[in-house]
Amino acid sequence: MSSYILAINCGSSSIKSKLFLVPGNKGDALKAVADVTVKNIGSKGDKVKFKISWEDAEGIAKLGKDLEEDGEAGDAVEYKKLPPQLLERLIKSSEKLEKSQIKAIGHRVVHGGPTEKPITVTKEHEEGLERMDKLSEFAPLHNHSAVLAIRACLSALPDHTSVLLFDTLFHQTLPKEVYSYAIPPQESGALDRSIPLRKYGFHGLSYMSILGAMAKKLNKKEEDVSIVVAHLGSGGSSCCIRKGKSIDTSMGLTPLEGLVGGTRSGSIDPTLIFHLVPGAAEDAGLEGIKVSRAEATLNKKSGLQAVAGTANFGTITTRMTDKSSCSEEEHSACTLAYDLYVDRLMFYLTGYLSKLLGSLDSSEVDGIVFSGGIGEKSDYLRADVARRLGWMGVSVDKARNEQASKGEEVVSAIHAEGSKVGLYVVQTDEEDVCARMTREELGL
Amino acid sequence: MSSYILAINCGSSSIKSKLFLVPGNKGDALKAVADVTVKNIGSKGDKVKFKISWEDAEGIAKLGKDLEEDGEAGDAVEYKKLPPQLLERLIKSSEKLEKSQIKAIGHRVVHGGPTEKPITVTKEHEEGLERMDKLSEFAPLHNHSAVLAIRACLSALPDHTSVLLFDTLFHQTLPKEVYSYAIPPQESGALDRSIPLRKYGFHGLSYMSILGAMAKKLNKKEEDVSIVVAHLGSGGSSCCIRKGKSIDTSMGLTPLEGLVGGTRSGSIDPTLIFHLVPGAAEDAGLEGIKVSRAEATLNKKSGLQAVAGTANFGTITTRMTDKSSCSEEEHSACTLAYDLYVDRLMFYLTGYLSKLLGSLDSSEVDGIVFSGGIGEKSDYLRADVARRLGWMGVSVDKARNEQASKGEEVVSAIHAEGSKVGLYVVQTDEEDVCARMTREELGL
Repeated sequence: MSSYILAINCGSSSIKSKLFLVPGNKGDALKAVADVTVKNIGSKGDKVKFKISWEDAEGIAKLGKDLEEDGEAGDAVEYKKLPPQLLERLIKSSEKLEKSQIKAIGHRVVHGGPTEKPITVTKEHEEGLERMDKLSEFAPLHNHSAVLAIRACLSALPDHTSVLLFDTLFHQTLPKEVYSYAIPPQESGALDRSIPLRKYGFHGLSYMSILGAMAKKLNKKEEDVSIVVAHLGSGGSSCCIRKGKSIDTSMGLTPLEGLVGGTRSGSIDPTLIFHLVPGAAEDAGLEGIKVSRAEATLNKKSGLQAVAGTANFGTITTRMTDKSSCSEEEHSACTLAYDLYVDRLMFYLTGYLSKLLGSLDSSEVDGIVFSGGIGEKSDYLRADVARRLGWMGVSVDKARNEQASKGEEVVSAIHAEGSKVGLYVVQTDEEDVCARMTREELGL
Repeated sequence: MSSYILAINCGSSSIKSKLFLVPGNKGDALKAVADVTVKNIGSKGDKVKFKISWEDAEGIAKLGKDLEEDGEAGDAVEYKKLPPQLLERLIKSSEKLEKSQIKAIGHRVVHGGPTEKPITVTKEHEEGLERMDKLSEFAPLHNHSAVLAIRACLSALPDHTSVLLFDTLFHQTLPKEVYSYAIPPQESGALDRSIPLRKYGFHGLSYMSILGAMAKKLNKKEEDVSIVVAHLGSGGSSCCIRKGKSIDTSMGLTPLEGLVGGTRSGSIDPTLIFHLVPGAAEDAGLEGIKVSRAEATLNKKSGLQAVAGTANFGTITTRMTDKSSCSEEEHSACTLAYDLYVDRLMFYLTGYLSKLLGSLDSSEVDGIVFSGGIGEKSDYLRADVARRLGWMGVSVDKARNEQASKGEEVVSAIHAEGSKVGLYVVQTDEEDVCARMTREELGL
């Protein structure tokens, strides 16, 4: 009987999941056989949507029939019910797959604090999960869904092993001067003392996926790849990867610091929050978790949404470039949101490029990588970034840039011939990294 | 009888002041005739020190005798008593000067909010001061000393006119996408609603002084000067000046955002403060002003002081470069503090240089200017910055760089022949700008 690994990536409003066949030969790569998404979680007026696509993996026919099914009402469903419902539909839609064949589940978990390797948990040994629960108290907005999902998986599939894969793992190589804040020791009586107050960085699984894809594309070892990555999705961050290692990244103690996101403010004057949110330190009253009012406002109600009135980047660029598509006010708001977004982005890209160019021969710097929903789809943004870096000899190839937005290649080179710095678009695949790390961790 | 303008620059622990002769001919420049400093304000175990130096201005002999005198105990003196004591000593040390000859006082005031021009107040018309007091509630840590000083001057010198010169004035030209934060509107019940929550920027008088000095040095009009300035003193900020106008700056709503300072954290993850300071939003209990505990900790107990154990940059570089000068721990702490300081500084310098080079011909970019106590004195730091920008073709002239730290020239060019970007050290003079703006405002 074949074994499978399931990768689960829990967001607050969606779950992305993939099922992988573990080949008999340890030297062979995992094969993705099914793709599962759950949408509309928490959404008012919509039912939760399950979608399963069975893929033709190399050498194996589809293992089941594609399925699309509505679940409970989005705003009424309990999060912990979703992983078991996902598993049931996966088994049901395949005639061949049995629950017991899923030997392991790899979970993407946002905050791992200073944890240096993945944590393994089973139904009998949940100690690791308890340790992570402490971190969850620390970064509740980000880890809460994952904790609920892992507990639910352990109940639904009692014989499997779950592996917790933290986004923070990739940034364990940050130099001390980069991860340290210039702050005094925690004052006694402060909120908690469970982890050091330092920069941790996030989107690590995505950066690992991108690094792997770039190494393959450039026909180099990962440790010879030096790139500046802009992972621009509804959450956005940038990372400076020097010879395969993260040496700087824009997110900090939590994912709030750094770039502007769909609903995140990014960096602001820290004491601004007392002027913005009454009782900033008080509990926001979110169900089941302790989150300060300030954290809730700056993570959920700010960013592009607050400036443009929408967090959809495609809508923002359309309203900015086509006045006839919207009202005058919408046009102005979207123009400001775009300009502000790119202004902050350029700061990180130039800072990180300078770090690489300042410590490597320019021939060793492979270039800038765009990824994430916005980075992969907005050729407008990519062309604009290239134009703003024109003084450095950066130039984009118009046709390649537009072609790349179709998403047909994992890695697309979009720079013009003779560009001094390479430009790439990479389709990031966090679930693939989850599955590979899980396999490695468990020796499957 | 000749008229004089006094410039007063009130800090929390010192007052810098200069007396200027207003020449009869409006076309002639003001002449600095005396230099007054007050030190050790608030200092335990030290008495307040007054020091007056009468200068030989062009065409006039010294108007008085130099004076050094102790005042009350540093930690017992009331701030509002100091300006009258300063005035009395100034009059006393000169046999020629009479109180009534001081027609105007120009006060440097840190936070002016969205105010677009200087505010004029007299004993009879203090409305402007009341307006400013509201801003003082908003940024108490920064404006409080100035308010006390202005009120004291109005009592001590009832016939003069005081002009409030805000550091924020110079940054009124910031583009909207730069001064806007990606945040929702203030929630009802928030701390106050007196000024918009946006980036204001600070050190404006210093930037005006530097811009003027650079225009003179380069033999250009101010509106043709494009520079990136690093004003690095116990408070540090950077400014991107494009064709004489501020288009970006590192400080934000308050001086906290941006670079690491002597006791300021600079930018951090905003919600970190709840983990650092218990009751972050609560009043810090500072005498006479309302300041949140977080604001007090991040402005007064963080920065170089928190990391290195000292805010003295000279001590930090000595301990870093000369292991025999200190303990192993001090050496490590100072190395980390220096590395962290430069890491953040480089980010702003490269970001701002890129803004200029991306929108101007490279021949129009005049270069990088170092100023403030650290910027003017640390040739070590300046050489390091140049080295890190070596990939852009920046190079420093070792001898000129070392010579510049002696402070003999207002503007020293320190780049090597052939450097692609100019490097300058400018002795900033905020009091001179105060006096010039006061004269212009009052038509003296």
